[in-house]
Parts: sequence; C-alpha cells; structure tokens
Amino acid sequence: MNAVPRPAVAPDPLAAWRLTDAPWYTPQADEVEVFEAAHARRLPVLLKGPTGVGKTRFVEHMAWRLKLPLVTVACHEDLGAADLVGRWLLEADGTRWQDGPLTLAARHGAICYLDEIAEARADTTVVLHPLADNRRLLPIDKRNELVAAHADFQLVVSCNPGYQSFERSLKPSTRQRFCALSFAPPRPEHEQQIVMREGGVEADVAERLVALAARTRRLRDEGLEEGASTRTLVHAAQLIGQGLSPRRACDLAIVQPLTDDPALAEALQGLVDACWP
Amino acid sequence: MNAVPRPAVAPDPLAAWRLTDAPWYTPQADEVEVFEAAHARRLPVLLKGPTGVGKTRFVEHMAWRLKLPLVTVACHEDLGAADLVGRWLLEADGTRWQDGPLTLAARHGAICYLDEIAEARADTTVVLHPLADNRRLLPIDKRNELVAAHADFQLVVSCNPGYQSFERSLKPSTRQRFCALSFAPPRPEHEQQIVMREGGVEADVAERLVALAARTRRLRDEGLEEGASTRTLVHAAQLIGQGLSPRRACDLAIVQPLTDDPALAEALQGLVDACWP
Amino acid sequence: MNAVPRPAVAPDPLAAWRLTDAPWYTPQADEVEVFEAAHARRLPVLLKGPTGVGKTRFVEHMAWRLKLPLVTVACHEDLGAADLVGRWLLEADGTRWQDGPLTLAARHGAICYLDEIAEARADTTVVLHPLADNRRLLPIDKRNELVAAHADFQLVVSCNPGYQSFERSLKPSTRQRFCALSFAPPRPEHEQQIVMREGGVEADVAERLVALAARTRRLRDEGLEEGASTRTLVHAAQLIGQGLSPRRACDLAIVQPLTDDPALAEALQGLVDACWP
Amino acid sequence: MNAVPRPAVAPDPLAAWRLTDAPWYTPQADEVEVFEAAHARRLPVLLKGPTGVGKTRFVEHMAWRLKLPLVTVACHEDLGAADLVGRWLLEADGTRWQDGPLTLAARHGAICYLDEIAEARADTTVVLHPLADNRRLLPIDKRNELVAAHADFQLVVSCNPGYQSFERSLKPSTRQRFCALSFAPPRPEHEQQIVMREGGVEADVAERLVALAARTRRLRDEGLEEGASTRTLVHAAQLIGQGLSPRRACDLAIVQPLTDDPALAEALQGLVDACWP
Amino acid sequence: MNAVPRPAVAPDPLAAWRLTDAPWYTPQADEVEVFEAAHARRLPVLLKGPTGVGKTRFVEHMAWRLKLPLVTVACHEDLGAADLVGRWLLEADGTRWQDGPLTLAARHGAICYLDEIAEARADTTVVLHPLADNRRLLPIDKRNELVAAHADFQLVVSCNPGYQSFERSLKPSTRQRFCALSFAPPRPEHEQQIVMREGGVEADVAERLVALAARTRRLRDEGLEEGASTRTLVHAAQLIGQGLSPRRACDLAIVQPLTDDPALAEALQGLVDACWP
Amino acid sequence: MNAVPRPAVAPDPLAAWRLTDAPWYTPQADEVEVFEAAHARRLPVLLKGPTGVGKTRFVEHMAWRLKLPLVTVACHEDLGAADLVGRWLLEADGTRWQDGPLTLAARHGAICYLDEIAEARADTTVVLHPLADNRRLLPIDKRNELVAAHADFQLVVSCNPGYQSFERSLKPSTRQRFCALSFAPPRPEHEQQIVMREGGVEADVAERLVALAARTRRLRDEGLEEGASTRTLVHAAQLIGQGLSPRRACDLAIVQPLTDDPALAEALQGLVDACWP
Repeated sequence: MNAVPRPAVAPDPLAAWRLTDAPWYTPQADEVEVFEAAHARRLPVLLKGPTGVGKTRFVEHMAWRLKLPLVTVACHEDLGAADLVGRWLLEADGTRWQDGPLTLAARHGAICYLDEIAEARADTTVVLHPLADNRRLLPIDKRNELVAAHADFQLVVSCNPGYQSFERSLKPSTRQRFCALSFAPPRPEHEQQIVMREGGVEADVAERLVALAARTRRLRDEGLEEGASTRTLVHAAQLIGQGLSPRRACDLAIVQPLTDDPALAEALQGLVDACWP
Repeated sequence: MNAVPRPAVAPDPLAAWRLTDAPWYTPQADEVEVFEAAHARRLPVLLKGPTGVGKTRFVEHMAWRLKLPLVTVACHEDLGAADLVGRWLLEADGTRWQDGPLTLAARHGAICYLDEIAEARADTTVVLHPLADNRRLLPIDKRNELVAAHADFQLVVSCNPGYQSFERSLKPSTRQRFCALSFAPPRPEHEQQIVMREGGVEADVAERLVALAARTRRLRDEGLEEGASTRTLVHAAQLIGQGLSPRRACDLAIVQPLTDDPALAEALQGLVDACWP
Repeated sequence: MNAVPRPAVAPDPLAAWRLTDAPWYTPQADEVEVFEAAHARRLPVLLKGPTGVGKTRFVEHMAWRLKLPLVTVACHEDLGAADLVGRWLLEADGTRWQDGPLTLAARHGAICYLDEIAEARADTTVVLHPLADNRRLLPIDKRNELVAAHADFQLVVSCNPGYQSFERSLKPSTRQRFCALSFAPPRPEHEQQIVMREGGVEADVAERLVALAARTRRLRDEGLEEGASTRTLVHAAQLIGQGLSPRRACDLAIVQPLTDDPALAEALQGLVDACWP
Repeated sequence: MNAVPRPAVAPDPLAAWRLTDAPWYTPQADEVEVFEAAHARRLPVLLKGPTGVGKTRFVEHMAWRLKLPLVTVACHEDLGAADLVGRWLLEADGTRWQDGPLTLAARHGAICYLDEIAEARADTTVVLHPLADNRRLLPIDKRNELVAAHADFQLVVSCNPGYQSFERSLKPSTRQRFCALSFAPPRPEHEQQIVMREGGVEADVAERLVALAARTRRLRDEGLEEGASTRTLVHAAQLIGQGLSPRRACDLAIVQPLTDDPALAEALQGLVDACWP
Repeated sequence: MNAVPRPAVAPDPLAAWRLTDAPWYTPQADEVEVFEAAHARRLPVLLKGPTGVGKTRFVEHMAWRLKLPLVTVACHEDLGAADLVGRWLLEADGTRWQDGPLTLAARHGAICYLDEIAEARADTTVVLHPLADNRRLLPIDKRNELVAAHADFQLVVSCNPGYQSFERSLKPSTRQRFCALSFAPPRPEHEQQIVMREGGVEADVAERLVALAARTRRLRDEGLEEGASTRTLVHAAQLIGQGLSPRRACDLAIVQPLTDDPALAEALQGLVDACWP
Repeated sequence: MNAVPRPAVAPDPLAAWRLTDAPWYTPQADEVEVFEAAHARRLPVLLKGPTGVGKTRFVEHMAWRLKLPLVTVACHEDLGAADLVGRWLLEADGTRWQDGPLTLAARHGAICYLDEIAEARADTTVVLHPLADNRRLLPIDKRNELVAAHADFQLVVSCNPGYQSFERSLKPSTRQRFCALSFAPPRPEHEQQIVMREGGVEADVAERLVALAARTRRLRDEGLEEGASTRTLVHAAQLIGQGLSPRRACDLAIVQPLTDDPALAEALQGLVDACWP
C-alpha cells in the first residue's frame, strides 16, 4: 500500500558491449604497452595490417585489460555519418533520437573500434575529426547537440594498407590525428601455438600448416591477392579434427578460399602436396 | 468461467522455412561428409560453381539431413545490409523492428544461405564478418543490439567464379572466413539419372540429352557464355513427355535459351541434329 | 430480423485481370501447342522477338485459351524488385502490405507477363529465380513471408534480342530457367490478313502496305534501327480509312515514326512512292 | 424540412484544363485535317520539330477545336513514371491516392500532351506503351488498378530531333506506336503575319524581322545552335512597341539570347546592322 | 459584448520580400530603361555577366523602382523543380502544401530572380517554360493545380557565360524565351565612385584600387580564373579604413582570395607593389 | 495561490557553443589584428593552409577574444545545404522546424566556422552567397523564411589549397566574397614552445622533434603527401612522457601515421635515427 514506485536505476547503456570472457591473446611484441601509453593520454589509435592478423582480437584483449566496453563497427562503402552518430526514429508519440554506436561510446565511455575505416564514406571520417583531436567533441548537427566525450572514451580504427586504392586511403588530416601501430603476421612459433590452441591439433600438424601458410604468402608475387591467414590454418586444423584428411582439409580451408584462378589453385595444391606427400 | 487465458506458446518464427519434403539429391563426391565436418564446427561454407549445377539443391539437402530450417536469400546488386539485418517499420502505435532474413536465422537457429553473394552490395559482405568468425555476433546498429548467434546457426554462401568481374569478387578478408567447396557439372551417368528422374523420360532419351549438353559445353570456346545446364535437359525431357518432338523440345529448352546469336544458334542446332538425325 | 450478417465472400483479387473479350489472334506456326506443353508443366516461358511482332497479343490469346487472368508488367530501367513484389503502405491505423503484381499473380494464380524483362534492374531478375525453378517459391523478405506459387501460376517474360546491349542481357542463370520461343515478323499473307482486319482496308491496299513494310525492313543495313512493324501498317490503313491519301498516311504512320534522319526519311519516301506511283 | 441532402454532383475534375479562350492559330499545311484523322481513330500523335515552331500552340488549338481538356506535362530528365501516374499522399486519416496528370487525362477523357518526351526517364515512356496501343490501358502497379482509358482520351507527345543525342532518342517500340507529324518553321509570309499580330508592329518592321530570322538560321553552319525562332521576333517587336530602337530590341531579344560566343554575337550583330543600316 | 470575430485580413504572403531600403545603384548604360520595357510586356529577362558585376544589385534596384517584392533563389546543382514549386509537408492533421519560392512569386505577384540558373538541375529550367512564354502558367503536377501567374509576376534569371561548360549551358528552347541583357565590369570612374561610397575611402585610394583591379583582369591570359571584382576592392577599402596598410589589405582582400597558385599570387603581389611602391 | 506562471525566460540557444576555457594560442604574425579588422566590418574570412597548422585553434581563440559563441561544422562531400540550414522534423503533433548550425549562428549571433568548405556539396557554398555579401540574408526556401543575420554573426571558412583538385576548388563567385588569410607551419621556436607546453617534454626533446618535423616536410618532393604536423609532434612528446623511448614514440606518432609506403617509411625512420642516434 501507499507504495511509491522507486525511481528506476538507469540501466547501463553499454551492458551488451562489456566483454564477459577474457579473449585469448598472446602479445607478439610491445603492442600492449604501446596501446596502454596511448590510452593513458586517450590518443586515438590506428591499427595497420593485413586481414586475419589479429587486429580485432587485440582490441578485444585491450578492452578486457582496461575493463572498458567495446563498441565495434565494421565499415563499408555505404556507411555514413548518420550510421555512426545516430538518427531520429519515428515513434507513436513523435520522433525519438537514437544514438549511433559512436555517440553511444563517446557519451557513456567505451572504446569505439571502427574496423576498416578507409572503406567508409567520406563524411564518416570527417565526423571523427573533432573527436580525434584535443577537443574530444562530437557535434550532432541533426539535434544541435555538442557531446563532450566521456573521460573513458577512446577511438580505435583499423586499415589494411595492402587493399586501399588511392581514393580509398585516409587523408593526411585524418591520419595525423592517430598514433599508428603496425601489425604483421605472427612469427612461426607464435602462429603454431595459436593453431594448436584454437584448431585443437598436435604440434606436428600445426607446424606443417604454419610452414604451408608461409609458402602461400610468397605466392603474392605470382598474383595471389593475399596469402593464407592464421584464421584459415585454424579452419584447416578444425576440419582435420573432424576426421578429414589433411590434404582435403587444406583444400577446403586454404586452397579454395584463397583463389578462383585454376593456375594459382594448382600452385597452392602443389604446396599442400609438398607438406603432406 | 474464471478461465484464465493460457499464455500463448510463442509460435516457431522459422516454421515457414522448415523443409517438409526430403529434396531428392544424390551426392557426387564427398560433399555431404565435408559439409557435415564444417557444420560440426559451425564453420561458414562457400559453395563455388557454375549455374544449374545443384548448389541450391545441395543446401536444401543438407538442411533436411541436419533437420535445420533454411533461410535463402538471392543476392543482387541492390541488396544492402538493411535487407539482411532488418528495418524499422512504421506502425499505428510507433515503429516496430522487423528482423531481416539473416537476423531471423542468426537469432533463432537456421542455415542462412546467401545465393550469389558476390552480387550484393559491399555493406552486405561486411555485415557478415563478425558473424563469420569466432565471434559469431551480429551487431544491429540501427537498434544498438548485439545478437549472439544461436548455437544452430550456420552461414552458407555461393558464388559463380565464371561470372565475377574483379570489382564483383569477394575481398580476401571475406573469403578467408569461409571453407570453400567446389562444384562441377555432374558426371554423365549421374546427370542421366537426374534427367530420367526429374524429366520423366527413358534412359535412351536421357542419354542423348546428356551427350548433347556435354557438346554444348565445348562451345564456350566459340563464344557461348555457358553450356546447357542439367536444368535445361530436364526441361527438354518434360516437353518431350508432353508430346513435342525431341528436336522441337531441344530448340525450346536448350538452343533458344542459350543464345540470341544466330551463328551460335545454328551451331547448337547442328548439335541437336546430330543427336536426333 | 435476427438476420446474421453473412460472411462476405472474398472478392476475386484478380477480377480486373480476367480477359472479357477473346483477343483476335491467328497462329503463325506451332506456338500455341508449344506454349500449352510448357504450361502443362508450368515451365516459365521466354518470348524472343522484335517490336510489334505480336508477343503481347499472343500472351493475351493464351491467357484467354487457358482461362487464366493475365497480369502484365512493362519493365523499364527503374523497375526494381519492390515494384514487382509489393511494399508497405502507411495507413491511418499503421502500415498495410500491398502485394505487387508478381505476388498477386503468384499468390492467386495468374499468368504474370513481364514485358522486356532485360530492361529491368538486376534485383528484378533475381527475385524471379526461386519462382522460376522447381521450388516455385517467392520469398518476400520485407515481411518474412515465403509464398508458395498457386498451382495456376505461370511466368512469361519477353525480350527483344535486337536491342539489348551486353550489360542489358539476361544472365545465363536467368535464361536457363526458361523455355524460349522465337517470334519473327508474320509471313506476308498473314500480315495482309491482319492489316485488312484491324486496319479496315481492302486486300489491294493491305497488300501494298505489306510489300512496303518488307522493303523498309531491308533498310536496316543502311542504318534504319528497325523496319515498319505490322502495327504501323494498321495505323496507315486506319488513316487511309479516314480519308487521307495513301502516300500521306504512309508518311504519318511509317516514314516519320521510323526515322528522324533526312537521308533515311528520303529513302523511305522513295519506297512509298514506288508503292503508290 | 424533411430535406434529403441531394447527392453532390461530382465536380468536373478536368475543369482547370478546359481552354476558355480560342488560341490564335493559322494552319501552315494540312496539320489540322491530319490530326483530326488520327484523333478519329484515337491514334497517338508525335509532333516533331525545332523549338518555338508552334507545336504547343497547335495542340492547344486542336484541343479547342475538339472541345477537349488539355493536360500538358513538360518533360525533363528527372520526370519518372510516378510523376505521370500518381502517388500515395499521407493524410491525417491514412494515405490517399492522387492521380498524376496522365491518369487524370486517361480516366476522365482529355488530350494528354507530353512536351519533349525524349527528355523524360525511361520508365516514363514504358508506362505509355499499353496506353498507346490498341489496349488503351494504364496499369497503376502501386494500387493494383488497371485503368481503361476514357473514350475521349488521346495521347500527344513532342520531340525535337535536332537536340536529341542517341541515348535520349525514343526506342522503336515507342516510336512505332505513334503517328508522327513534322513541323518546320513557318513560311515567311506566315511568320510575318504572326509577328504583326502578336508583336503589334507594322508590316515593314515585321518583314525585316522575318528576313533577319531567316538569315540567323543560316548561321547554324557556323556553329549557332539554333536560329531565331518566331518567338524571339515577337519579343523584338514588342520591345520596339515599347519605344526601344529596332537595333537595341534585336540585340536584347535575338542576339544576346541566341549566343554567348563573341564571334557569333558579332556575326548576328552584322545581320541586324544589315536590316537596319 | 456580442462581438463577432472579425474575419482576419489575410497577411501579405510576400511581406518579407518587399525591400524596405532603396538599394544604392548607379546605372552604367540604358539597363534601367531596357528592363522597364521588358517589364511592361512582362517578358522574362536573362542577365548575363561575370561575378561581382552588380547583377543582383541591379535586380534589387529594379524591384525597388517597380515597387515589387523580390524573391531570390541562388541556384546550385542540386536545386530541383520541387525546390522551386513547392512540396507536401506532413502535419499533425495530414499533409499541407507549401508553395516554393517560384510559386509564391507567381501566385501573389513578385519578381522571381533565379541567380545562376544554368547551375540548377534540368527539371528546374523545364518548369519555367510554360511560365516564360505567353501562357504564363505554372502547372503543379503534385497537386494537379494550374497556377495562372499574377499580373505583376516577372521572371528574371542570371548566368555567367564565362563559367559554363557545354553541359551546363541553357538549351535554346529555354534561352529563346528570354530577353537577354549583358553586363560588363563598371567603367573606371564608375567603379571608383562605388569603392569610395561603399568602402569609405578617399578618391586617391579608390583610384589606385580600381587601377589595380584593371591590371588583375589582364592576368586571365596567364591562367587567373577571374580578375578582382568590384566587391574585392570594396573589401580592401574597408580593411584600409580599419587601419590596415593598403598592401596588407590588398593581400587579404584581393591576392589571397583570387588564387592559391604561388606564381599567380606573386604576380598579383607585384601588381600591388606597383600601386603602393 | 493565484500564482500566475511566470513567462519562461527563453534559454540561450547558443549556450553549448560558448567557450568556457580560454584556448591556448600564441600568434605567429598579425593574424589577430587582421581578423579583428575583418570582424569589425563583419567581412567573411577564409583561412587557407595545410592540416594541423592551427586554423581551428585560431578560430577558437578569436571567438574567445571576441566573446562570441563558435558553431563549427566539419564539411564533407555529403554535406548539403539542408545540413547547414535546417530541416523539418516529424513530431507527435506535426512537423517541427529545426535550425541547422548555420541558421542557428546567423539567427542568434555566433561565428559560424565551416572547416574544409571545399569538400562540401555545391549547394552548400551557394547557400552562403547572400549571407556572405552585403545583404547578410539567409533564405530558407523550405519554410519561405528570409533570415536577416544577427549583428554579431560572422562567417569563417577554411580550405587546404594543397589538397584540392580542380573540381573541388571554390568558384570565384564564392572566393571573392571572402577575405583570405594564409597560414603556414609555425616557425621552429614557436613550434618548440607548443610541443613543450602541450606535449609536456623538456626543451631538448621538443627541439629534436621540431627539427625532425622540418626534415619530414622536405620529403614531399619524394612523394610524401604531407610532412609531420605540430599535432604529431605533440603526440610523440606525450608518448615519451608515458615512458616510451623517443624512437618508438616517433615511429607510432610520426612515421606510421605519415605513410603506408615501405620506402617512405624507411626514409622517415632514417630521419628519426638521425635525431636519436
């Protein structure tokens, strides 16, 4: 009786983006210390490197270490500023503003990770400018609001220098707002460890897969767009674990995904044959 | 009286996508075992091969074997991320979110089959990335929701390497997320069996149609875009079953659909004449 | 009194598309039997041929013979999948779904005739794929509905091979789903009969018009885009019936519509002069 | 008392498009008879000719003679089918359909005049096809309605062959649905009469203006896009009537509008000087 | 008591566009008389000339002289017909039509001035056609309304022949609807007077600025896009009035705005040095 | 009792855009005086110069000095006039107009700063024209409103001449409305002071960083798009302050952000090695 409804405690708007399990990650070099230094000054960070090299996993690891929510946006050529900043939704009782992922992160304090930023539309990178320099402001023109970034907010973006055409590269005025960290494929011993752990195979099989991957990467000079990533090795290992022969598993997880070109496929097949003669 | 309305049992949102009849399919090689191995680890699968070779039928067969609903999306150059993920619909009492086919499959556990994925817009493939790696997440930016894929969810896509121009090919960062399985036209005895069964003709007629198809495939060097698929043979057989002469049936089901070029049409007609002199 | 409102009988949603008068049509060859054979198996049919050759009239004739409603869509380069499948309309009490012409035909059982399909946008042809093979399904992604085609539904499309540029041609994966029937301009006696009947002129005048048309068709080598169709002859005959001189009528109905080029116009005028010296 | 509200007489939906004053027009040749012949059979009419030659005035004259309302649409490159056919408007109590100008004319019986049809988008011409052949039907896909044209409806379009690039020309399947009537600039005596009547000048001034126009038309070989139209002569005459000198009036109404090129302007000025030395 | 609400007097819909202060303008030649002659017959007027030459000021002056409201629209490449004619706005109680600036001027009687008309989209110029000939009609297709222009309405447009590429030039069918008036940069004494009056400097400074401008205009042959306009001289004068040195003022108002090219900037600087050695 | 609700005092619509802390800025030359002179006459100002040179900081400084709110808009290629001027929002009780940032500044009196104006769409620059000349008017066509700029309003824009392609450069009719102020990279002593203050390092480290930057700027001839900006030096200093070695800090803050090209990266690395041998 006479009960007064208790004011609801505002739910954590970033709850869904807090990592509940520690992502498995073994550092390759000083990337963890460097990221922590940049984070201490809240400098925006740009991760450069080829596909499958672990950039996304690294950001997950850092968010876990720093105990921060992680809001990830996969960029593409139709991604515009409104997709990041937010939009008006029409509701029964008028329009309602919905924060986009960037605003969500800036307002409430998360790492916002824009994967393959160079793919996004031009207005996307420009909207980052006032947020990526000492102003740390996000102007939301559509509602005449100026969001001052939360103290915990940090901006992280990635790009793959191997892909980008000139038109798709970031402008200097964007790039120079970031500290940039270069990622290379893992060293063989390191890659073997990943394949064993995530692919569930013995050291001998993992070693052969890693050797195979290294050889495929040398085929770039013959026209192969990109060599086998660690991810494809893990796939091959998993298929072997399901009972497929190593040669069949490598065909499915490595040769066929890497190319449609018959000549390159044959060359890749030759490399597989050499590993499992 | 006093009857309390029973809480409605939530209807199965995937009911319409469960297969009720077993699709007829005879394996050509080890494709069933390979798919099952990939499925056991929920690895995304890419089916490569020319038109009419049975990729769609194979996915239907596997969905039936694995007792999973099958959500199929035919991709085209105007298909964007919103078409897959979902959109806000305006209703009398405000906007209502409607899951797109990909979200439906990811949320409730189905095989999602994206046919001719390379035809879709760039944002479509990018939306698959977090769903196609070990994260198995589908971020729905438009409602700030992060859908963790159902344990039964599996992603299958197809492409036709013969068509794709360079701009329309998948990026390595997309391809390397998939295990890829190559499909070729069926072997003659196998194809003959299909034509007899689906076209309802005797062995002799089916054999001639299969021989004819093999010859049309050799005309690709003279400029024919693609040879007669098994589907066209079934059509010809069905028309023969309706009382048309084999030559007229082949003209309607094979020669005319394959080309508008008078010279190529004449060459195809010559092949028909050779089969039914 | 005590009258209980009778449940309304659902009105026939295809009433407007049932033909009330038999369209006049005289077959040129075996096209009626061939279409009936394809219809018996519900195979999709592609009509190939130049403008004004009677493709549309033939489909009307077949719909009349088969006692089926006929839903016709004239394709153009802005016609997209939504135009065929349907869309959400905003009503006073929320959004209401409206079936597009293709859905209407598939759901309730009609012949759906897509005129000049190659002109439509790419998504249009892709939406036909599951409907044009043995699945006979129309997935409506926008409302997560999977329409199984009505037993009476049949798909008919037309194209004009003379026009199509390479970009505008149908892909093999589309073409091979259809039986194709080639239409040529009518034979002279046949064309004369049409001109007499529809143009209301005597045999002599009709014969001269047919002869004139035949000669204009030979001007294609000199750069005329297309020769005079039977339709233009009917127009000329009708104008003669209104009292214009044959030469003036031919100028209005044939020469001026066929070309804007002065040299070609003069050549056409010369052909008219030769018919009515 | 007891008055029963009389059913409202539906207002004439074409009232605004009925001509209240007879447009002044003197025929150049047999164009009135020819149009009447085409109208008697309701054949669609295409008016061909350069700018300012009186095509629009002629259609107004014919609508007046035939006592029909005239709905005119000036085509441009952004004009699409929806602009002609109609669209759904959102009202307080749901959406309301509004007929476009073509539907208005077809439904209630008017001449519909599409000026410079070749400028319109491709979907515009395709929407005319079923209306411009013996079917006389206008399918409104957006509301699943099939409008049978009113008995009084007639379609008239115009184009300017001098402008059109190849991409912007009408397809044969469109052109051959029309009877085509060619318009040329008026003969000198005729043009003089127009200039006197509409420009309000004496015979001598009108004669000089007509002679000047004829000479400007010969400058097309030197690069002038189009010679002076009758309209520009009327403008010059009107300015003379306002007290400007003939030379100044010709500069304003003829020389400056015809070109921005200094050399061509000088050549035109020379022609003016020759008329009023 | 018993007071009956007086019918509201409709507010003047053009109130905001009536000029309250006489714009300062000294005629260069007979442009005022010529404009008045064209206005007397309501002929549409085209003003041709380079930037900053006073076209806009002249129209303001004429509107003031003729005591007419002036509705100005600055055209750009995204300006379409709807922006000029009007659009449906969604209100609480349904949609409401809002006249665009052209309709506002045509309906209620104003000079409508479309600045740099050649920049607008093609549909924009076409919408002017029936308004710019003797019909003086504005068809509003979107609401099936035909607006007859108010007796006071006059159409004025401007273009800059120096800029326009071929694609961006007006079509003859548009141009020949207008009387065209050419504007050139003011004569030196005239320009000096303007600079003194608007820039607030002595005759000597104004004279030097005018001489400087004349020299910059000769640099067009060396690649300067356009010479210094009168506007830039007024700016320089105003900065001098604020205490900057003439050389610094000329750098800010003339040299820097005119070019980004170092060589051209140096050449301009040299001209400044010559004026203030 | 009887309390009459006090009329609410209208809140300051520009409150969020008033600077609360003085931005740190040391003038390089006479830019403060020059800006004040232009501001006194409310002349629009164009800031020209490369990225990271302090243009944005300078505008903040001037807004602070002049005690004016500062509304900043980062321009991009999808920014159109509506984004600056405002738009209609649909609310529960009809549409509501929302001023865009330019209207907000013009109506209530702020400095409006459009960063990298040349990136915006063409309609954006045209909307500035009547606001950037002596009229100081902003016509809002969408609501038929004519906003007279507030006495405090001033327009400031920036561009980077180094970037702009020809298509992206401002038209003379736009440029000549502005006074233009050129910014160059700071002088070494000045830059060193900034790095010490903002980067928190000793004079010696700052001096080396400044020397390094000067050398990178000379690499533009070898293909480096732009040399290290002051901002990157501050980043390097901050990382050094976090305990990273100067060489590692320079790699992260300078070498990696400046280029993806291996040869250029090596050259930059060489310059770093020379500074910290």
